[in-house]
Amino acid sequence: MLVQKRGSSVRGSAWPRRLQKLYCLSVEQSQRTRQSYLGTMPEHGLCCLLLSLVIIVSCSLQSLASPTYRFPRFLGKFAGQTESHPQIEPQYETQYFEQRLDHFSFAELPKFRQRYLISTEHWLGPQRLGPIFFYCGNEGDIVWFAANSGFIWEIAPQFGAMVVFPEHRYYGESVPFGSKDEAYKNATTLSYLTTEQALADFSVLLTELKQNLSCKDCPVVLFGGSYGGMLAAWMRLKYPHIAIGALASSAPILQFEDIVPPETFYDIVSNDFRRESPSCFNYIKLSWGELKSKGQTNNGLEQLTKTYRLCRQLNKTEDLSDWLDSAYSYLAMVNYPYPANFMRPLPAHPIKEVCKRIDDCPAGTSILDRIYEGVNVYYNYTGEAECFELDDDPHGLSGWNWQACTEMVMPMSSSKESSMFPTYDFNYSSFKEECFKNFGVTPRPKWITTQFGGHDIHGALKKFGSNIIFSNGLLDPWSGGSVLHNISESIVSLVTEEGAHHIDLRAAGPDDPDWLVEQRTIEIKLIEGWIQDYHEQKKAAYSM
Amino acid sequence: MLVQKRGSSVRGSAWPRRLQKLYCLSVEQSQRTRQSYLGTMPEHGLCCLLLSLVIIVSCSLQSLASPTYRFPRFLGKFAGQTESHPQIEPQYETQYFEQRLDHFSFAELPKFRQRYLISTEHWLGPQRLGPIFFYCGNEGDIVWFAANSGFIWEIAPQFGAMVVFPEHRYYGESVPFGSKDEAYKNATTLSYLTTEQALADFSVLLTELKQNLSCKDCPVVLFGGSYGGMLAAWMRLKYPHIAIGALASSAPILQFEDIVPPETFYDIVSNDFRRESPSCFNYIKLSWGELKSKGQTNNGLEQLTKTYRLCRQLNKTEDLSDWLDSAYSYLAMVNYPYPANFMRPLPAHPIKEVCKRIDDCPAGTSILDRIYEGVNVYYNYTGEAECFELDDDPHGLSGWNWQACTEMVMPMSSSKESSMFPTYDFNYSSFKEECFKNFGVTPRPKWITTQFGGHDIHGALKKFGSNIIFSNGLLDPWSGGSVLHNISESIVSLVTEEGAHHIDLRAAGPDDPDWLVEQRTIEIKLIEGWIQDYHEQKKAAYSM
Repeated sequence: MLVQKRGSSVRGSAWPRRLQKLYCLSVEQSQRTRQSYLGTMPEHGLCCLLLSLVIIVSCSLQSLASPTYRFPRFLGKFAGQTESHPQIEPQYETQYFEQRLDHFSFAELPKFRQRYLISTEHWLGPQRLGPIFFYCGNEGDIVWFAANSGFIWEIAPQFGAMVVFPEHRYYGESVPFGSKDEAYKNATTLSYLTTEQALADFSVLLTELKQNLSCKDCPVVLFGGSYGGMLAAWMRLKYPHIAIGALASSAPILQFEDIVPPETFYDIVSNDFRRESPSCFNYIKLSWGELKSKGQTNNGLEQLTKTYRLCRQLNKTEDLSDWLDSAYSYLAMVNYPYPANFMRPLPAHPIKEVCKRIDDCPAGTSILDRIYEGVNVYYNYTGEAECFELDDDPHGLSGWNWQACTEMVMPMSSSKESSMFPTYDFNYSSFKEECFKNFGVTPRPKWITTQFGGHDIHGALKKFGSNIIFSNGLLDPWSGGSVLHNISESIVSLVTEEGAHHIDLRAAGPDDPDWLVEQRTIEIKLIEGWIQDYHEQKKAAYSM
Repeated sequence: MLVQKRGSSVRGSAWPRRLQKLYCLSVEQSQRTRQSYLGTMPEHGLCCLLLSLVIIVSCSLQSLASPTYRFPRFLGKFAGQTESHPQIEPQYETQYFEQRLDHFSFAELPKFRQRYLISTEHWLGPQRLGPIFFYCGNEGDIVWFAANSGFIWEIAPQFGAMVVFPEHRYYGESVPFGSKDEAYKNATTLSYLTTEQALADFSVLLTELKQNLSCKDCPVVLFGGSYGGMLAAWMRLKYPHIAIGALASSAPILQFEDIVPPETFYDIVSNDFRRESPSCFNYIKLSWGELKSKGQTNNGLEQLTKTYRLCRQLNKTEDLSDWLDSAYSYLAMVNYPYPANFMRPLPAHPIKEVCKRIDDCPAGTSILDRIYEGVNVYYNYTGEAECFELDDDPHGLSGWNWQACTEMVMPMSSSKESSMFPTYDFNYSSFKEECFKNFGVTPRPKWITTQFGGHDIHGALKKFGSNIIFSNGLLDPWSGGSVLHNISESIVSLVTEEGAHHIDLRAAGPDDPDWLVEQRTIEIKLIEGWIQDYHEQKKAAYSM
């Protein structure tokens, strides 16, 4: 029933005529698969049917007391690990651009150097209005995002496009105050790490770049995944004069305040496991209690240290819970249909594999031993690990946690009924206290929606804005906070049932399923349409 | 020929169907009058045919050396004079709201109280989604703007609308750091006086207000004149989720960089005089040389002091030139077709009256004496002045000059051929130096267009944005930097040939010419359309 409602709603939406055929195929196909696992899901409303919870983090500035805080976790932490297994090795030049620290005041502050990667190899040049493909760098080293966004590099030649990957301020090499230590020192030095400043960086950089390359009329197309996808969508909305369109992949721009239920993220993670195996889901659901009981016994922490092959003695069970929670949540994000090495080397359909290991243990195996077998898939698929470090964030997440504690306040709960995680209710007062303790800053939880909207986004943008693709895979726990229905003729939603976190931005490969090939084809057609419209408009203006 | 081009271009634009009839009437009528004075005008391009130059100012922080700097001058200076002759006396409550000083960083800064005037007398209330009419306060005391924007108060009852007039930060009572002296002390304290911060103030205030009044779904319509009109247009573009439409009256959002020729403002002022009387135009054009020569003679400054009945001894002729320049430019702005007391008490068609005085002097009257007779209309129409103070800015313009020296860099020149003012070429280097000398700040002349667009605004917004009215009177020298053609079905331009600076926002009166009555009728219809569309959309969403 629920499924029918969603299906018919999507199909009823306005859709660019040139793509109606392709899109209908895509919807019908996904309808079939959808029914296989949605039957048991709770209903939260039209946009957020499947949905659930989020994550956690051992806070980098100081360890958080129980109850564990659930900071929304994106992928940026892995972007520190540029050496590890890039998906592709794109060719580009590395450049630097001097930026103001505060674009929105005239306060005298030190400037900083923003790094950007640029390739003009396939660019048509200014005369032919060659497009500029601009990736909105997110919370990590831009080299890693460039290496893991093969789609953009692959399609650039057919568009004759220049490719630019600017780094987000305060990440990678683009840190103010001379060093990361100085930049991350306190709330005063961190205070300019905001989305609005990052968007202004991109806009100033693009304006200068276009001027220097004498291509002020060249159309800019924005790309971004995850937080970068949010930036791409917001930038198209805020700077329509600078970019003609945006592909915002897995961009949870609605994961704020009460726009979607706070259980959204963790419910989706849980459902990703349940659809593979209800028993696996149950083992995990039971494991938290087992863990807690074990930890309270004599030598319990020692035994857990041994069972889970930890490199250091476990101090409290919450650290282990966080580590497991983290694994499940990331597994849901990277639940790709082919073997991949995005954050870690993993097999195809990794959740299926995890559940197989958990379920297939000999009868009589304890729950905690089963969980160990399962989580080994995530943390040690290559079998090379001798022991495990629970702090899975060696590169520091404080930049993202600062953002989560200031503007990017994404309430995360997990419900007793639908989630396999420990029950947890987001409590803003405690969250606020924790942020103040960690960073000396008070969050502004309503600022993002004041600045960018979100409440009744369909109403607000139905006759405003254009040329945005929101692409989402429903396996991705972030999909629940994203735009899952078309808003207008040209602000559209591309939903794939079997997709995970911004899978469409990854390089094409021999194992890509048909729906992914098809999704990318649709995206290319839409972008071609934007550029074609732009050229026609220019031509009409010239001939006036 | 020129006239035909403009006329046919406007008529060819898309136009809301419901208003086609009204609009065509309006265009045809204005076509007739347009031909009476456009014949002699220089051609600058499609958007800026009629146009010409701006103004000046005795800089408040320190006197500027020759060449006199031409800071763009709006009307805010008069908004200090709240006691003088309000057009109407609207009923409202005065409230205060605590605002962040920097919305775009998390720096710890003192908050400030923003004043706003509010009337809910005619409001339909939250149940019936009563609209909120929100005036974007500009560079002065908000009480004055409220008193001089009768249109909004007059139409509120028929819409069942609440009326809100928020004050712009750093003006009136809404100054940070406890006092104006502290707020205006130096570049550091002034650094948060920017348009982006002002728009964020409005957005935060509206969001809170709607929440407190339990009317989060009530549609907001923005209004603004002059700089306030720019804010209204920009706010609709940047915060479409907060306001459903904007009436931007006399809003020169294109008066930046090289979007319109720098001569635009002063050319329009000059043409306003020439259309009344070519001889008057010539007397004024010749007067600057006379003034300079006289000033260089023995006792010249004393004689000028006497001729012009100055209260203090003239130190240099530039001060007198500025005073005259100021009079002509403001006369062009307030060249209303009925007696008005907007900035000063003036007769109907004041430029006609000035030229009559200049032209009608007995044969043999010197040019400087004629000029004195003319300028008396502006500075002393009531005949009460015993002598004249050349510093016509007793309330201080430093807030606006700060804005002109930071973001609002509007290049102003006057050409030898088409202008009646002394020839002057805007020179950015000197301007920059002057700003640094006055305020210790370096302007960012490209920031406004990076932030809000402006270059190729028709192309950028043709398929983006909606529900903005740009209304302009072609007698207004600021009209040259505004949007004079329809951009899309719902971003439209209302042009009146005989209108001056945001005349449509003023209260209706018995002397209003038909075209003004008609213009306001069109505006009301358009706003009704926005609200009706909004209600229909809401209704459709509820019934889903």
